[in-house]
Amino acid sequence: MTYTLVLLRHGESEWNAKNLFTGWVDVPLSEKGTAEATRGGDLLKEAGVAPDVVHTSLLRRAINTANLALDAADLHWIPVKRSWRLNERHYGALQGKDKKQVRDQYGEEQFMLWRRSYDVPPPDIELGSEFSQDADVRYAGEPIPRAEALKQVLDRALPYWDGEIVPDLQAGKTVLVAAHGNSLRAIVKHLDGVDDQTIAGLNIPTGIPLVYELDTETLKPTNPGGTYLDPEAAKDAIAAVANQGK
Amino acid sequence: MTYTLVLLRHGESEWNAKNLFTGWVDVPLSEKGTAEATRGGDLLKEAGVAPDVVHTSLLRRAINTANLALDAADLHWIPVKRSWRLNERHYGALQGKDKKQVRDQYGEEQFMLWRRSYDVPPPDIELGSEFSQDADVRYAGEPIPRAEALKQVLDRALPYWDGEIVPDLQAGKTVLVAAHGNSLRAIVKHLDGVDDQTIAGLNIPTGIPLVYELDTETLKPTNPGGTYLDPEAAKDAIAAVANQGK
Repeated sequence: MTYTLVLLRHGESEWNAKNLFTGWVDVPLSEKGTAEATRGGDLLKEAGVAPDVVHTSLLRRAINTANLALDAADLHWIPVKRSWRLNERHYGALQGKDKKQVRDQYGEEQFMLWRRSYDVPPPDIELGSEFSQDADVRYAGEPIPRAEALKQVLDRALPYWDGEIVPDLQAGKTVLVAAHGNSLRAIVKHLDGVDDQTIAGLNIPTGIPLVYELDTETLKPTNPGGTYLDPEAAKDAIAAVANQGK
Repeated sequence: MTYTLVLLRHGESEWNAKNLFTGWVDVPLSEKGTAEATRGGDLLKEAGVAPDVVHTSLLRRAINTANLALDAADLHWIPVKRSWRLNERHYGALQGKDKKQVRDQYGEEQFMLWRRSYDVPPPDIELGSEFSQDADVRYAGEPIPRAEALKQVLDRALPYWDGEIVPDLQAGKTVLVAAHGNSLRAIVKHLDGVDDQTIAGLNIPTGIPLVYELDTETLKPTNPGGTYLDPEAAKDAIAAVANQGK
């Protein structure tokens, strides 16, 4: 007996397509992203993997990915839970900026440090600025960040993992988490015990369900690294993500 | 001080467009229905009516109407609750049948009795038949009906109203209920104290938010009949619904 966890990274957003740092800016899926989300649901259905509950971030690219995938899988009716703790990494002052411009301006080293270091966050976002969420009602009263590295994402995601996701798993439910590149990397780091260096090179492709079977005692994967429902497409997509900003 | 309740009937479904009895058959929105749902969200946004929580049925035409409307209103992130108790009336053995054919076969009087009488349900659906939901996992363990008149819809919706919706209202939340012609008529009957005869002539148009302000003591409307966010369109649509099956 194992618990089944399914991770699903949202499909391409309009800003992914434009190569902008997005973070908590609430941009919609692109047309391609919409198709990816539906394809993710088709993969679930074909594999006979049927989530009993879905957890999403508060951002529409993850929410709509879940909606589209679950509709395609005929599971649009399952219970839904949402939390800002599953949001993408907060990219701080980089939010809204062109990735290539940032790289040209600050140099490859600083660029890669902000993108990939485990614990060096970008500069804080200015409160009240165009791409800041400090006045957004959905976060009212929550201890939201002004910039995060992956470490801070893990720190704020873990209470949600322990408090909301693990209880669903322990109730025997197959859990779908529809979220973002970095909030899912944080969960994968936690599950697989990936070290702070190795996680830098770990990319999760968009729209391809990643299925973990977790030991019921230890909650550690019996299939370390998880199993993509379309392994060939995942391999190709991982290579593509690694080339972002190039 | 009042509580604010918003009722939203799903947009046109593929079977509405084909003039078939739908009931619990889980058909998708038509293209027109998709546009209606988005327009419903635009109306909420324009009116500054911002639900804090949404309740839906377990049927995709209501779920996707809520998803599309909330996305348009920038409220895609609010908490979601679902229940079969908000489902459309179960049309029994009529599910999947052409409305005009049923009318021709059984005559105008029987047809109108099944469609509009308060407490005469259509014949029970045959278990295991094409349009029956008895094997559908989403209803497992629930006391689901095999045919309903409006009275039975009200009887099974009321426990959900009292147990899930009223507590949200009493917590000061603006509540959106995205559901169906008959489950919403049941709620309206309850709220406005509509008698068993008058309710037969009451139609709720698709895709136009109907806003009730409820007295905090009695939970009765301070605006009896509610207020449509687009009153002109509502008037036209009510006339159109009344002509269904003609």
